[in-house]
Amino acid sequence: MTQIYERVALIGLGLIASSMAHAMRRAGLAGEIVGTARSAETRDITRELGFCDRVVDTVTEAVEGADLVVLAVPIGVMSEVAREIGPHLAKGATVTDVGSVKRAVLDAVSPHIPDNVEFIPGHPLAGTEHSGPRSGFAELFENRFCILVPSENADVDAVDRLTVFWEGMGANVETMDVDHHDLVLAVTSHTPHLIAYTMVGVADDLRRVTDSEVIKYSAAGFRDFTRIAASDPTMWRDVFLNNKEATLEVLGRFTEELFALQRAIRTGDGEHLFDYFSHTRAIRRGIVEAGQDTDAPDFGRMGKKS
Amino acid sequence: MTQIYERVALIGLGLIASSMAHAMRRAGLAGEIVGTARSAETRDITRELGFCDRVVDTVTEAVEGADLVVLAVPIGVMSEVAREIGPHLAKGATVTDVGSVKRAVLDAVSPHIPDNVEFIPGHPLAGTEHSGPRSGFAELFENRFCILVPSENADVDAVDRLTVFWEGMGANVETMDVDHHDLVLAVTSHTPHLIAYTMVGVADDLRRVTDSEVIKYSAAGFRDFTRIAASDPTMWRDVFLNNKEATLEVLGRFTEELFALQRAIRTGDGEHLFDYFSHTRAIRRGIVEAGQDTDAPDFGRMGKKS
Repeated sequence: MTQIYERVALIGLGLIASSMAHAMRRAGLAGEIVGTARSAETRDITRELGFCDRVVDTVTEAVEGADLVVLAVPIGVMSEVAREIGPHLAKGATVTDVGSVKRAVLDAVSPHIPDNVEFIPGHPLAGTEHSGPRSGFAELFENRFCILVPSENADVDAVDRLTVFWEGMGANVETMDVDHHDLVLAVTSHTPHLIAYTMVGVADDLRRVTDSEVIKYSAAGFRDFTRIAASDPTMWRDVFLNNKEATLEVLGRFTEELFALQRAIRTGDGEHLFDYFSHTRAIRRGIVEAGQDTDAPDFGRMGKKS
Repeated sequence: MTQIYERVALIGLGLIASSMAHAMRRAGLAGEIVGTARSAETRDITRELGFCDRVVDTVTEAVEGADLVVLAVPIGVMSEVAREIGPHLAKGATVTDVGSVKRAVLDAVSPHIPDNVEFIPGHPLAGTEHSGPRSGFAELFENRFCILVPSENADVDAVDRLTVFWEGMGANVETMDVDHHDLVLAVTSHTPHLIAYTMVGVADDLRRVTDSEVIKYSAAGFRDFTRIAASDPTMWRDVFLNNKEATLEVLGRFTEELFALQRAIRTGDGEHLFDYFSHTRAIRRGIVEAGQDTDAPDFGRMGKKS
């Protein structure tokens, strides 16, 4: 329970920012939490829920005297917000963000950050299909990675401090090169999301044929897809617009592989299918061993019983 | 706790059959459970675990005097098993199966079933990524659908009895036309599985580029895919070989939609992406309302804490 920052400003009050507020409070990481959001409704809900010490109406007010500023807005408006807050940032402050793409955010925000302020882009690998200030909870970051992509000449103490801050919220912090981050995430998160969105769209289309049965009989496979595809549309639009090259590259490979499997189905090549499915099964073991998921036989069904 | 069948023969002792045995025992649905499997190792494990009253070495022995015979073998061997047991089935017995495709099973099994035996194909929409006799548990079918596809001239009493049996194991039983079943499942289960297998294969390929980071940073999207893609390779090979037309049709539509989204990314058409993602979000609500999943904010993460 050590205070890391005297005043933390949360710009944007959605799932991530509200969860950060809950987690900061639980661990006593911030002297004061100041929040703001563009929408008056979001600000009112936040006031009602009380997870910020103060809710203010403008971003310039929010960053005043803050030694940590967290940009938790859609990637598409990062540049605009950075331009607004730039002149009002406190000397020696750290600015970070929580966006899912890092090169685009770095390029959008950096030009607006004064020399006496550190910008350390970050990305907590955590989320649910819910969004908005009501969706936050203190445990969101527990045992999840938070990737920081500091520049080569970043202040070591500022990076350390931000690391301790995220660790205080339960995350495992790693640092990475900015472009490498975008490629890894294109594989592990962005392309899977696009695919899930697509499959749910196809099912919805076919629902007109099969009535409500597609929903009713949503077996495990499809049900997981709908959960993924229920994520925030604005956030995901911005992810794809801002991680275009990596996503398109991974998509290209995906299409190639899918066509090979499709041909195996059409020609009845059972050996190809069996080999492919055996191979992919092994990768799951690696994930369980890396501690990113459990091996529990009823995993994913526990929620159903509550 | 009413006994529905005097003797139930389980042919094949994997996840589904072992879960049925546990569920039958819990509810007292069977006077005696007789099991058999082609592999001596599986039979030994089953004897060790003790979830069958008797484990026998041959399918002909297993079905002797059984009033319910459950074919819980891969779809590819259904025909062979049916041919072997046909002459040994007790008069008045019911034969059912648990395969994920129904037209192919119906065509494979029916010719071998004598006139005085009812064949009622079935499909419990339940499973985990685990397989084998050790993976079964009594709760697998709780609150899950089991679809029966009886022929038009099926014996009503036999269908009712099988329905009560599945309900006794916790399932919600529905009946459906056999071909309609295969189309609905192609959308909700088979195609999503193929896509998940493909994405995991692509990631594994790219792992050589990104080292073990693809596994380490497997955010929610990809992690769900790996779970789906860890399912039994034999079972899934047989699903695709035996539900070829419906799967290829759904895959065709999937590819069309994916190409449209890919083009939107390439051309920077944010409006198209946003509209698509907003639309798919709505279908998730339908699934939560249909009781096939929960709305809990930490759903899918609960297992991590245990």
